[in-house]
Amino acid sequence: MIVVMKSGSTKEQVEHVIKLVKEMGLKENVIVGTERTVVAVIGNDRFKDRTVLESAEGVDKVVPILAPYKMASKEVKKERSLVPMLGNGEAKVGGRKVQVIAGPCSVESKSQLLETAHAVKEMGATGLRGGAFKPRTSPYAFQGMGEKGLELLALAREETGLAIVTEVMAVDQVALVNEYADVLQIGARNMQNFNLLNAAGEQPKPVLLKRGMSATMEEFLLAAEYIMARGNTNVMLCERGIRTYEDYVRNTLALAAVPELHRVSHLPVIIDPSQGTGKSYLVDSMCRAAVAAGADGLIIEVHNDPEHALTDGAQSITPQQFADMMKAIKRIAVAVDREV
Amino acid sequence: MIVVMKSGSTKEQVEHVIKLVKEMGLKENVIVGTERTVVAVIGNDRFKDRTVLESAEGVDKVVPILAPYKMASKEVKKERSLVPMLGNGEAKVGGRKVQVIAGPCSVESKSQLLETAHAVKEMGATGLRGGAFKPRTSPYAFQGMGEKGLELLALAREETGLAIVTEVMAVDQVALVNEYADVLQIGARNMQNFNLLNAAGEQPKPVLLKRGMSATMEEFLLAAEYIMARGNTNVMLCERGIRTYEDYVRNTLALAAVPELHRVSHLPVIIDPSQGTGKSYLVDSMCRAAVAAGADGLIIEVHNDPEHALTDGAQSITPQQFADMMKAIKRIAVAVDREV
Amino acid sequence: MIVVMKSGSTKEQVEHVIKLVKEMGLKENVIVGTERTVVAVIGNDRFKDRTVLESAEGVDKVVPILAPYKMASKEVKKERSLVPMLGNGEAKVGGRKVQVIAGPCSVESKSQLLETAHAVKEMGATGLRGGAFKPRTSPYAFQGMGEKGLELLALAREETGLAIVTEVMAVDQVALVNEYADVLQIGARNMQNFNLLNAAGEQPKPVLLKRGMSATMEEFLLAAEYIMARGNTNVMLCERGIRTYEDYVRNTLALAAVPELHRVSHLPVIIDPSQGTGKSYLVDSMCRAAVAAGADGLIIEVHNDPEHALTDGAQSITPQQFADMMKAIKRIAVAVDREV
Amino acid sequence: MIVVMKSGSTKEQVEHVIKLVKEMGLKENVIVGTERTVVAVIGNDRFKDRTVLESAEGVDKVVPILAPYKMASKEVKKERSLVPMLGNGEAKVGGRKVQVIAGPCSVESKSQLLETAHAVKEMGATGLRGGAFKPRTSPYAFQGMGEKGLELLALAREETGLAIVTEVMAVDQVALVNEYADVLQIGARNMQNFNLLNAAGEQPKPVLLKRGMSATMEEFLLAAEYIMARGNTNVMLCERGIRTYEDYVRNTLALAAVPELHRVSHLPVIIDPSQGTGKSYLVDSMCRAAVAAGADGLIIEVHNDPEHALTDGAQSITPQQFADMMKAIKRIAVAVDREV
Repeated sequence: MIVVMKSGSTKEQVEHVIKLVKEMGLKENVIVGTERTVVAVIGNDRFKDRTVLESAEGVDKVVPILAPYKMASKEVKKERSLVPMLGNGEAKVGGRKVQVIAGPCSVESKSQLLETAHAVKEMGATGLRGGAFKPRTSPYAFQGMGEKGLELLALAREETGLAIVTEVMAVDQVALVNEYADVLQIGARNMQNFNLLNAAGEQPKPVLLKRGMSATMEEFLLAAEYIMARGNTNVMLCERGIRTYEDYVRNTLALAAVPELHRVSHLPVIIDPSQGTGKSYLVDSMCRAAVAAGADGLIIEVHNDPEHALTDGAQSITPQQFADMMKAIKRIAVAVDREV
Repeated sequence: MIVVMKSGSTKEQVEHVIKLVKEMGLKENVIVGTERTVVAVIGNDRFKDRTVLESAEGVDKVVPILAPYKMASKEVKKERSLVPMLGNGEAKVGGRKVQVIAGPCSVESKSQLLETAHAVKEMGATGLRGGAFKPRTSPYAFQGMGEKGLELLALAREETGLAIVTEVMAVDQVALVNEYADVLQIGARNMQNFNLLNAAGEQPKPVLLKRGMSATMEEFLLAAEYIMARGNTNVMLCERGIRTYEDYVRNTLALAAVPELHRVSHLPVIIDPSQGTGKSYLVDSMCRAAVAAGADGLIIEVHNDPEHALTDGAQSITPQQFADMMKAIKRIAVAVDREV
Repeated sequence: MIVVMKSGSTKEQVEHVIKLVKEMGLKENVIVGTERTVVAVIGNDRFKDRTVLESAEGVDKVVPILAPYKMASKEVKKERSLVPMLGNGEAKVGGRKVQVIAGPCSVESKSQLLETAHAVKEMGATGLRGGAFKPRTSPYAFQGMGEKGLELLALAREETGLAIVTEVMAVDQVALVNEYADVLQIGARNMQNFNLLNAAGEQPKPVLLKRGMSATMEEFLLAAEYIMARGNTNVMLCERGIRTYEDYVRNTLALAAVPELHRVSHLPVIIDPSQGTGKSYLVDSMCRAAVAAGADGLIIEVHNDPEHALTDGAQSITPQQFADMMKAIKRIAVAVDREV
Repeated sequence: MIVVMKSGSTKEQVEHVIKLVKEMGLKENVIVGTERTVVAVIGNDRFKDRTVLESAEGVDKVVPILAPYKMASKEVKKERSLVPMLGNGEAKVGGRKVQVIAGPCSVESKSQLLETAHAVKEMGATGLRGGAFKPRTSPYAFQGMGEKGLELLALAREETGLAIVTEVMAVDQVALVNEYADVLQIGARNMQNFNLLNAAGEQPKPVLLKRGMSATMEEFLLAAEYIMARGNTNVMLCERGIRTYEDYVRNTLALAAVPELHRVSHLPVIIDPSQGTGKSYLVDSMCRAAVAAGADGLIIEVHNDPEHALTDGAQSITPQQFADMMKAIKRIAVAVDREV
């Protein structure tokens, strides 16, 4: 890191900073500029707390040089990671094939789930999404079917062969969800639920980690690092839109996240255009854009009867709209040397 | 709610909306305007899912009329709530006296905690803050002392009489933290950890709930509603800054939250100027402003040696700075007919 | 619009609202709900000031129903507009062909401009960008070559046939820029420079209007409306990224703007991935995504020597990178039934 | 500035950076760290374009050390500036007395203006605000009375002695507004209308410069620098709320701007709680908070009949509310060793 002293900082203050740097087991390199003195810190300070130096008198600011994450970083692993989606290991996220995970926001009934699962399978989806435990803004809203929903998901897998991607909201649900799911989803609201991240890191199933709604890239990758540091390196990063001042969408879908995450990390990147816009009529365009931008996968809300969906009807597309979208992205995938 | 049809919507589409409204157990009132038709929905739709109607064909948008929270709302309880801070019920948040909760970001050692506790007590603080379980962005950062930290907090209470305010990060920590703390803090990153909110609602200690870093007021009050709906109505709302594009602060402290929350809710409002700015040199001014704006309490990071703090040194003030600040806010409190 | 009364509003307050509605020349429809009374306003209130009603006692909020813009709206003109780019009217924005406007951020010299112009022309660009008047954050930065720059742009047009797109920053530059340019660009910082919008509306050249860095869609379309209301309907809307908390980009490129603007307006939509990310290494992916999302055009910063660019070197791509990108988007355009 | 090389950058790349640094007339200091090489640039690079270095191969990022503004900076002038408000030089902004500028959003009529002016004068205001030229989001909204409005403002000054603060929207209005006004206001939408800033810098009247709705502090101070660099150093900085995701306010009032601007600049700071919240019921609290935070002035919308205001009724307070607020802030001012 680089410690920038204030204009007019004293020699004593600089010496005090040097002392603090040495206390951290690092070395200093003092550069006396025309207007400011700067102390460059030499050594691996990746995991050092820079606020210590920010508190010292005469210090203006401290600029980090190294990214604070390591296992998620491309500096450590140059080639792209392939994360398996299925227990049987066939479908992988991060390779030439763009994986499509589709299904209802919530599992609501056997007929709803199976009907949708068969429909999306037929059109080329390889994963089935569906929430059994639902994080809801209001305590009075439908909270999901719980284990009964997980059983229905398992049934759908049996019938269709789709990999099951479903959310786990709490540490004490991890073992249960793990029993049924192929991929554990950690939702945006839980991206910094560190106890849950640790628990996800200590079980063997791959994890689809959603970016928090106002998380920076660094925070997002540090959340992945929590999981990886506990031993589970099968992490997929999912961009699902961020909170901005925009009011025509529920979230602003930041598609530049795709090339940026590929630049700094080896982990695969999945786009959620349903949460990412909150409007069913924007989903098709954003699926097309995501594939063109290089996304490794899509996760899309599809409901056989959006008007009667118990959750998120306004952002769900119908199986027919899904079919049209799939046709479009198959062509785009070819144009960018991928396949769907 | 109000269902706004698209320009050019058909009679059949309007009738279909009416059918959906009736399915919800509500009544409709159709208003045919010059350019648009609007369906006003009559009845208590507070807890109905409006996305159902948003998905119907011919619908442009659905505008909610009622706030989706109830127990936290001023419509239900007009007078301000007084929330006790201490087990013995003496200090209360929400009355004439502005309560000041101060202490280190993390509990680090016996001497650090006791020294700070005595110092802030002497200058008029009534609560002691200090984290034993710390939510940290990086898995490699200091994660708190755990139960040992809670024991030190209890010791500090014994010595000073200060109420202990400390964070609980996970459902399985609730019982343990409850044993030692007077007030359970739920941090910004957990504001929508709904399982934790439920657990906090099922235990008897008051809860200091921090606003999520990109939460709307509605989401914040619905998080409080989760706790209240489980039976615990002793909730304090804490504004701790929101995430914006501003880069000279760690968070943007939205002080208009004070009069706004008082306008729509009966719950007391606490300001955290330490997290709310992230810069020790901005804390004093923001404490002054918060008291002038009508805050019911402050929660402030004070460290006897910020340079060697294990967490958040850059936003901690020293006991001396705290003393100067207290003098200032005592005068301001009098000027606004309150006391510190 | 819909006037929502507060819970507990009095009969007198409702009657007063009705009086104000009538003063506006509109009619009211009072709906007494279970918890709230609502006054639906009947008539064309598109251009009425709703803050009048918001100020009345007993009023909680006023919800607009009609969009406040008209000429820019799809309600008024259903088919997509074709906006000519060249004085000779051959290239048009908004049709099957995706127009690519490329060139340096600033005009810096004859060799720089001509070299870049020939290069981008050869690879399929139909427009040449280049600033002669530059809005710069710092008064000490290079402010553009002024009229000399315009002359070089005209020379480049003569040599290459490319349409010239260049920025006008002030009312007193409009006539001059108009003499040389084929398309007048109004920059993000001037999106609400209403005097400039009026002046652009009173001259005949097409206008490329950039979205302000924190403008809503409504504000953006109202800015277009300013130009159109003065008689110039040849407006292209350009999304160039918005300001958010994200720090890995200079701006967050909100690609959902493409389908959204096409949904509500008949005007063509152009994407600026250079300003939209601020990072040359993100430009290629965002060009691909923009074409896949349905953009009618791209405006891209290309510099023959980015290291020595006087402005915005970090977001400029080289002619070689431009060539590679063009190859990719030509294939994507075909996949979405367009052409480049 | 500090040039941070990528991990794995080559010796040639570092040498190329050194060459570029020398081309800028600066000196380099190369620091080879454990994981990264860093090139510290020595010399006054305040006005150098760092994007040049960002474009070089092997460069990861470039970190500026010096603030890019100078005349507005506290580094250049340590003591606080006193900016005169009146032509006769009596009232000054930036001293012990907190100046209150109040009046209608727009000048609408003689009776409206004079009635309000007398009312606010009587309660202690020293400045009168009122727009004659109004920047309006919609082309169909009331655009101000123009010169007739300026005449009424001059009449109000004659009758009350209040200093006239009024907006100038365009370069060709500067001379005219200058004839009537005591202080020229540049609005948030024009904060980066650089031609207007230059014009304001070339005339002698003090300027009240509003922060753009998504401007950083650096951009704000560089806008002030534009004015100062042309010779007019009488600039007041006005914080008027920023655009965030918050929807209960029109803007988020960032009061930490007061101590921050005082920390980095010598210019006085004024708060606009009317624009800063957009809600009349939040204005009183924010006036109190602003004075407690150390603001040098307030600018407040007061209307004698908000319901019939032609602009911004919803954020205007009545003369009675203004009187109550003034009583409160007089007490708070005393508590912070100021006066109103």
